[in-house]
Amino acid sequence: MNTILLERLNAASKAEFVAALGNIFEHTPLVAEVAADRRPFATLDALLQAMTDAVRSLAAEQRLTLIKAHPDLAGKAARAGALTAESTAEQTSAGLDRLSEDEYAHFHRLNDAYKSRFGIPFIVCVRRHTKGSILREFARRLKHEREAELETALEEILRIGALRIDQLVSAPEKLKLSGRISTHVLDTHLGKPAVGVKVALFELSADGTARLLATATTNSDGRTDHPLIGGRPVPIGDYELRFTIGPYFAATGLTLPEPPFLNVVPIRFSVAEAEGHYHVPLLATPWSYVTYRGS
Amino acid sequence: MNTILLERLNAASKAEFVAALGNIFEHTPLVAEVAADRRPFATLDALLQAMTDAVRSLAAEQRLTLIKAHPDLAGKAARAGALTAESTAEQTSAGLDRLSEDEYAHFHRLNDAYKSRFGIPFIVCVRRHTKGSILREFARRLKHEREAELETALEEILRIGALRIDQLVSAPEKLKLSGRISTHVLDTHLGKPAVGVKVALFELSADGTARLLATATTNSDGRTDHPLIGGRPVPIGDYELRFTIGPYFAATGLTLPEPPFLNVVPIRFSVAEAEGHYHVPLLATPWSYVTYRGS
Amino acid sequence: MNTILLERLNAASKAEFVAALGNIFEHTPLVAEVAADRRPFATLDALLQAMTDAVRSLAAEQRLTLIKAHPDLAGKAARAGALTAESTAEQTSAGLDRLSEDEYAHFHRLNDAYKSRFGIPFIVCVRRHTKGSILREFARRLKHEREAELETALEEILRIGALRIDQLVSAPEKLKLSGRISTHVLDTHLGKPAVGVKVALFELSADGTARLLATATTNSDGRTDHPLIGGRPVPIGDYELRFTIGPYFAATGLTLPEPPFLNVVPIRFSVAEAEGHYHVPLLATPWSYVTYRGS
Amino acid sequence: MNTILLERLNAASKAEFVAALGNIFEHTPLVAEVAADRRPFATLDALLQAMTDAVRSLAAEQRLTLIKAHPDLAGKAARAGALTAESTAEQTSAGLDRLSEDEYAHFHRLNDAYKSRFGIPFIVCVRRHTKGSILREFARRLKHEREAELETALEEILRIGALRIDQLVSAPEKLKLSGRISTHVLDTHLGKPAVGVKVALFELSADGTARLLATATTNSDGRTDHPLIGGRPVPIGDYELRFTIGPYFAATGLTLPEPPFLNVVPIRFSVAEAEGHYHVPLLATPWSYVTYRGS
Repeated sequence: MNTILLERLNAASKAEFVAALGNIFEHTPLVAEVAADRRPFATLDALLQAMTDAVRSLAAEQRLTLIKAHPDLAGKAARAGALTAESTAEQTSAGLDRLSEDEYAHFHRLNDAYKSRFGIPFIVCVRRHTKGSILREFARRLKHEREAELETALEEILRIGALRIDQLVSAPEKLKLSGRISTHVLDTHLGKPAVGVKVALFELSADGTARLLATATTNSDGRTDHPLIGGRPVPIGDYELRFTIGPYFAATGLTLPEPPFLNVVPIRFSVAEAEGHYHVPLLATPWSYVTYRGS
Repeated sequence: MNTILLERLNAASKAEFVAALGNIFEHTPLVAEVAADRRPFATLDALLQAMTDAVRSLAAEQRLTLIKAHPDLAGKAARAGALTAESTAEQTSAGLDRLSEDEYAHFHRLNDAYKSRFGIPFIVCVRRHTKGSILREFARRLKHEREAELETALEEILRIGALRIDQLVSAPEKLKLSGRISTHVLDTHLGKPAVGVKVALFELSADGTARLLATATTNSDGRTDHPLIGGRPVPIGDYELRFTIGPYFAATGLTLPEPPFLNVVPIRFSVAEAEGHYHVPLLATPWSYVTYRGS
Repeated sequence: MNTILLERLNAASKAEFVAALGNIFEHTPLVAEVAADRRPFATLDALLQAMTDAVRSLAAEQRLTLIKAHPDLAGKAARAGALTAESTAEQTSAGLDRLSEDEYAHFHRLNDAYKSRFGIPFIVCVRRHTKGSILREFARRLKHEREAELETALEEILRIGALRIDQLVSAPEKLKLSGRISTHVLDTHLGKPAVGVKVALFELSADGTARLLATATTNSDGRTDHPLIGGRPVPIGDYELRFTIGPYFAATGLTLPEPPFLNVVPIRFSVAEAEGHYHVPLLATPWSYVTYRGS
Repeated sequence: MNTILLERLNAASKAEFVAALGNIFEHTPLVAEVAADRRPFATLDALLQAMTDAVRSLAAEQRLTLIKAHPDLAGKAARAGALTAESTAEQTSAGLDRLSEDEYAHFHRLNDAYKSRFGIPFIVCVRRHTKGSILREFARRLKHEREAELETALEEILRIGALRIDQLVSAPEKLKLSGRISTHVLDTHLGKPAVGVKVALFELSADGTARLLATATTNSDGRTDHPLIGGRPVPIGDYELRFTIGPYFAATGLTLPEPPFLNVVPIRFSVAEAEGHYHVPLLATPWSYVTYRGS
């Protein structure tokens, strides 16, 4: 995606500014128009604050219009390719473009139930979620009162907008919207970093399927060169790290049984805070290991 | 299976003795005939020793006949239901009755390769193995010399015979042929046994499928009332224990995120000694755990 | 100490019974007299219950007399050798016979403060305590009301009596008054019990001195043949286990630095329940270890 | 100590250069004279290399003179205050100024034994050592041949010189002569860094006494703001970290026994490489902990 410099937005005409940021809030360039007058913005945070204030200052009816401007999750518009580019990318991130017919029907029913109860589409910042956590959100939020849901919808819209700003506008400092999954492997049998261990990160679905998200090999410090997920929210959901330590210990010259007691070590954990840092190390010998949420 | 008392075998006529133990060694009542003369046997070990000696004392040709009396693994005879009852039960234990067409063909090819190379059927004590470890044994043993394989075949026959004796003959003390998979769960956050934790043991196949072998719930001592596998060899292969600790910690009244960081903890390990004791405990908090091969 | 069989007590004359058990409750044979009539006792528990009931049934004044019959802790009578044999042995167990002049004066002041506040001597079941925990009890109990302290004194007297019965009377089943400190050592680098590791248990004083209580060497199961403390209450206090694992790992043939990273591993912990089981294992490699309160 | 800029040394007259660096090698300004001609030095490493080359290029007799110019460890000259300022500071660092009469006599005997065997004083870079490791070095080196000891003495002299250069001359980049002892504390019961835990580092002597070297309190990241030892070699020897975690867990609002199972956690370890990084973390719950040499 092309990005635009914050300083260029500061220097642009109001029309250019609105053209650039008109879709930060779905089909609602009015937010950008109101925020434009508070230029210049020293930081992305200041720009976000101005647009948040503009959203919060909308009249009740305008707010409702903004909410209703959002498409259904995994809805017909998505199937028909009729979403904004932003919405399309977001729904794809949570795998909503990969639904089976059953799942599609399930989402459809939940959407309908939600709309008939609250009169608005179900809005959630999908970049912070997996399919499973969206379904749990549906179940949880269907029990709310309408007033609470109008507020929740607005908060999710602000989260969506913040992530869109962070992607679209480049500035010296990014917004603090990123979570992280990282790891390191320590060989507690030799008392040093385990080098060259293959690590894979999977997302787990409720039905038990595992989708490969990232692979890496530990470096001389026992770490991966980059976090397995970083620079973006970590979708709330279930994950499994798999460390292939069998070949690592075999290569140290140890006499090990065949097959070795430990070969692939799976560590299954869940992410509840999309902006959290999940450092999940492995401290291993050929016969034991320790793991924990570290820092 | 009906069992027979060791003392009854001691008191029986030679013909009855041979009738009872004639199939301990496949289609070879001669072994029982030779052993019968060494009665009475004070223990199962003594009976096993006598039959082992009888096998070892066979002339080379008789030994070859004994070896050749064994059916193909997962072979046509098995499909046609033409095996001894003992062989049928044994091949079932390793899942050789649940082969896909591809797997069946694979075993068929390996059997043929083995027979054309050594002139004898491939014999392995399948109660000590899983499908995967049998395939690894095929690969390993196909590289041997014929002499070595004749000896290996005999050793496997003696293992098969020992397990058959242990099942058929009852005596105050069993033979020492059993391995064990056991566990316990300690809550290191409260410093006491974790009670009521669901534990499941799976056998893992090379293709990643997991077959449920046993389930249990930890008792007041954090242990399971019985080993997850016990009283028999543990088939050489890959296993996964899964501990559902999320509900346990939720019930202690802790404030935990939703979803909790740890819910199902999988511990994947391999068994290399079918007669080994694999005690694999879990020491857990809601945010960390330790596991190891214990004693 | 000579013990007497429960069945002999059951068969004895009342006078003999009272002579044998007259000092279970300090200078108060009346308790034994009342209990004698409930014979025969099937178990030690039944005998204890009868004597407990006899104490509880004493009139208020008799109870006060029983309480006042107890000597001062570390008091002048102890110095002068004027205690009952039972009291002498008990005060010795907590080290009250090894006080420095300063400590002696400290106990003296606390005794006086307690007696002037409540009009009774400070009574505590010293076999369940260390010097440090007795001083903490003094501080805690000096803040109570008199009624509460009369009750606490009686409870401590009953604890003292129970332990005296357990020592004096032999029966098929002992009373359940014992705590335990035990350990085992697992070599998580080789995945098996660590054999031949020297273990020492120390009691720690507030001033940092360590008094050796027991030593042991781990057996083929990585355990010590006997608990380091067992068969009696574990005095409430601070302890340190020291495992000399350096020589153990050196003997496995590993290449280790000189000096090795880990040589003596100290594990410091406190006992709060004198009847608790404190199993404190060590899971070690040459570069790491885990410990926990186990079961 | 006043330092001098590397660039000033580069610009100085030869006489000034020699005056500044004349004592880098004990009483042997000749080394500085030879090295002076290789100026300018871009880095400290280059200066060190030039001086090392100068030492190595000395004639055998000059080398012996350099060796003999060194004082006895803990010798009469030290007692009389007759050492160079550099030697005085170094001998103090290892506690050689705090010897008891017995220890002083012990060192004296070893010095005499060494000198009578090799004809040179015992030279060791004391900043890399503790009293205990110096005694072990004495024992080890007394078994060598004279040629080997002349070479060892020279290597130790070069180590001493390098540390003196690093202290005396300031440059953008220091020499790589530093080891480190650091730690962090993780609360695996809450799954986050343990903040506000008091940590103390002690040096242990062979007689069991513990000398406090540093204290720190863990910050919001569970780390100490600075390494407990850093920016210099870590003397080879035995250490103990003590973590006071009792108050930390009490403050989290947990219900814990009185006294708590864990209060002060001691971790005892040895340093074998003075330039090594010893990161020794504690992962703790109120009932368990893990430690290891990390990275």
